[in-house]
Amino acid sequence: MEWDWVRQQAARAPERLALVEDDRILSYTALDDRVARAVGWLRARGAAPGDRVAVHLPAGSAWVELLFALVRLRATLVPLNLRLTAAELGRILADAEPALVVTDAAGRPTVAAAWTGRTAVVEDPGGGWDAEPAEGPAGPPDGEDLQSIVYTSGTTGTPKGARIRLAQHFWGALGSMLRLGHLPDDVWLLCMPPYHVGGQAILFRAALAGTAVVVHPRFDAKRVAAALGDGSVTLVSLVPTMLRRVLDELPGPVSPRLRVVLLGGSAAPPALVQEARGRGLPVRLTYGLTETASQLATEGLDEMAPAGASGRPLAFAEVAVGPEDGSPGRLPPGVPGEILARGPQVTDGYWRRDEPDRFAPGGWLRTGDLGWLDERGWLYVLDRRVDLIVSGGENVYPAEVEAALAAHPAVAGAAVVARADPEWGQVPVAFVVRRPDAAVTEAELLAFARGRLAGYKVPRRVWFVEALPLTGSGKIARHRLRAEVEAGRWA
Amino acid sequence: MEWDWVRQQAARAPERLALVEDDRILSYTALDDRVARAVGWLRARGAAPGDRVAVHLPAGSAWVELLFALVRLRATLVPLNLRLTAAELGRILADAEPALVVTDAAGRPTVAAAWTGRTAVVEDPGGGWDAEPAEGPAGPPDGEDLQSIVYTSGTTGTPKGARIRLAQHFWGALGSMLRLGHLPDDVWLLCMPPYHVGGQAILFRAALAGTAVVVHPRFDAKRVAAALGDGSVTLVSLVPTMLRRVLDELPGPVSPRLRVVLLGGSAAPPALVQEARGRGLPVRLTYGLTETASQLATEGLDEMAPAGASGRPLAFAEVAVGPEDGSPGRLPPGVPGEILARGPQVTDGYWRRDEPDRFAPGGWLRTGDLGWLDERGWLYVLDRRVDLIVSGGENVYPAEVEAALAAHPAVAGAAVVARADPEWGQVPVAFVVRRPDAAVTEAELLAFARGRLAGYKVPRRVWFVEALPLTGSGKIARHRLRAEVEAGRWA
Repeated sequence: MEWDWVRQQAARAPERLALVEDDRILSYTALDDRVARAVGWLRARGAAPGDRVAVHLPAGSAWVELLFALVRLRATLVPLNLRLTAAELGRILADAEPALVVTDAAGRPTVAAAWTGRTAVVEDPGGGWDAEPAEGPAGPPDGEDLQSIVYTSGTTGTPKGARIRLAQHFWGALGSMLRLGHLPDDVWLLCMPPYHVGGQAILFRAALAGTAVVVHPRFDAKRVAAALGDGSVTLVSLVPTMLRRVLDELPGPVSPRLRVVLLGGSAAPPALVQEARGRGLPVRLTYGLTETASQLATEGLDEMAPAGASGRPLAFAEVAVGPEDGSPGRLPPGVPGEILARGPQVTDGYWRRDEPDRFAPGGWLRTGDLGWLDERGWLYVLDRRVDLIVSGGENVYPAEVEAALAAHPAVAGAAVVARADPEWGQVPVAFVVRRPDAAVTEAELLAFARGRLAGYKVPRRVWFVEALPLTGSGKIARHRLRAEVEAGRWA
Repeated sequence: MEWDWVRQQAARAPERLALVEDDRILSYTALDDRVARAVGWLRARGAAPGDRVAVHLPAGSAWVELLFALVRLRATLVPLNLRLTAAELGRILADAEPALVVTDAAGRPTVAAAWTGRTAVVEDPGGGWDAEPAEGPAGPPDGEDLQSIVYTSGTTGTPKGARIRLAQHFWGALGSMLRLGHLPDDVWLLCMPPYHVGGQAILFRAALAGTAVVVHPRFDAKRVAAALGDGSVTLVSLVPTMLRRVLDELPGPVSPRLRVVLLGGSAAPPALVQEARGRGLPVRLTYGLTETASQLATEGLDEMAPAGASGRPLAFAEVAVGPEDGSPGRLPPGVPGEILARGPQVTDGYWRRDEPDRFAPGGWLRTGDLGWLDERGWLYVLDRRVDLIVSGGENVYPAEVEAALAAHPAVAGAAVVARADPEWGQVPVAFVVRRPDAAVTEAELLAFARGRLAGYKVPRRVWFVEALPLTGSGKIARHRLRAEVEAGRWA
């Protein structure tokens, strides 16, 4: 089987539209040539099959070309979140040990502060590659190739990289197309960062199907609203925060060509979904994880999820619900527990980490998320993995934020939980215990945090308390603090 | 992975529509129950995993339920063409050696004349199965299971059965959906006989995708025309003879819901395609074989084949053109030769026959058809496999008809070739050399042939000649006779 889908499309349907980025319009032939040159560019900078190559670039054709060039080279992509601080990037790069980090002029200072290894700078992102076309020297790509290592911070605050193989994207793409339909003239708008697995899934799906992707360099609600209105795109993926802003910018009715607004990334507020549907947006709900190469359960094109449901498992995914403590056994329909996933979409593990706690017997991934299945196969997600905060589509791991706060000499302990936010869905807020006789203000502590954390991770508020509530086993009882925040006791 | 797609749909999307046959409307739950009962019915009649079970029934829900029941039982379907004579069926059954032949009251006399082995009669086709639901006793089905043995007569006139594994249908279905698009509310009209591989492909594709099929018990042009007009179906497969009749019956414009009229089975006359498109039918051309589990190359939903082209190879099929004599090497774009096919859709061989001549080095199937590929990936089929006659969508193999004629004591030799026919595309005509001093008339010989051949195989004309033209190697030079017929020398 052919796993180099850009090459396949160039051979079989050369004139089909592949990529649109502003005024740059690439057919699959043109994209294939750029990918071949990107392979040459990477090889000239020392990247070789089996290497890891980290990419710290904004969305755009350079990103897309590197994605497919690394597949062809049979090297592994380590996508870097542009919003991370140098310290955060440094921890990821130390774990991934890439042979090469690719960035641009804007990213160079941050990368330089994070990493002393080999770095290559793209001079003109979008302008192509100053190199001759080259082949991957290690034979054609294979589904088992380690396509990427995608980092999440996990519950411990330490970055860990989910291993994503090319075949995971393949099965996810087919499952998505079966559920949402597929038309050969589909055009997917990519306005989310491609360093998230969902962005890469969009690009792989299009290449497999020979359809087109329109790339926006960053999320611009007005521009997205215009694209939904003028019929230039037929599908788009959004998180609730984005959808809210797009609704506010919609000049009029959406185009009848627009057939799916895929809404995922965090729990979708029912009022938002209702408003969007009322205004003619064909919203379909989805639930997915980095570890499942994006969508795991999705609402079908021609069906309506019951209230509270997020979708039905995709065709090639197995989804089950087990006891929260990870013990064997399955819970019957209607009974909540931990959501488990298995199948060809699902990761086989983490880079250089065993993480046995993330897997249940039989090869089932423990998502850490709570939910239940009904008799008709609908999945209800009650809570994202315990304590995870999803803010504007970005994951914030409380343990990581707490560790940053605890690094301040005046802090004895910290607990971070979510607060509902009308714009971002959730934002992090912190409870801090000061050391005896130490003095630090909220403003000082926030300034300290800003130097160590990406902006979206910095708490919106810090409240100083005498002590943090503990669970029976002595861990911080974040759920009690969250309940107090939800009850409005802290404002 | 789940290979019992009816069961999967029943578990995940139980209320979705699976099958419509007149007033009988089955959800996937209902179909799943009927399939389970059909498994029980088959087992009570002695069918077991690994057996071959021949089916001699008209199109309808019983046929569909047996198709999926045999998958679940892990037994192999041998579909029987209802138009064959008892003698023709007898040759196939002697080769297949089924454990059981399933027929109905109407088919019983023919089957009884063809076969002395175990036979089961369906009392009420469409009425369900007088049996308790049962499991297949041999574990879940697998993609490598031998789903069917589909007989063609081949160039020698001896029936040979192409081995079709479940995975061939899987990859063919995905390739078809990528090319023609897939919408979750698609409804495919099955009005061709399901004993052809194309009919089975429609049923498997729908079960994999969870979409619906409307089954007509036989081709009825008026009824098909009505379905295309009223929006009750979105896709239909036709051969040119069927399309001609449907056009003659179309009462008005077709429904905008109708998105594909897939035209295959034999060379499509350009004037017919033009007329159909002019009347609003979204005709898409395709080329396929029994051995490739139906479609191999298809015109995409959003593209227009250049004049003379039949389509582009499907996503998971490899198509190449090699020298006609089967020698290694590939011909460059634009140069005609023998069409070769490889990939997960393609058969790995024939039931109990080696047929090494049908495979080229590297596992390529030699289709026997002549054609070429252009620079843009379009496949042009110049001639179906040498001397094959396609009459109203049915294959007529000259060698088989010649053998039937030669069985007459007055016949010394016979050659059968195609004559163009406005209604059927092609019909067979025969050139016969009589034995010295033997006397037989055209009418006598045709009556003799009718007793031995299905009606569509019986020559329309017999011309008596002194001698048959021979090739350099002493074979009958059918191409010279065909050229004379095309030139109008015989009428």
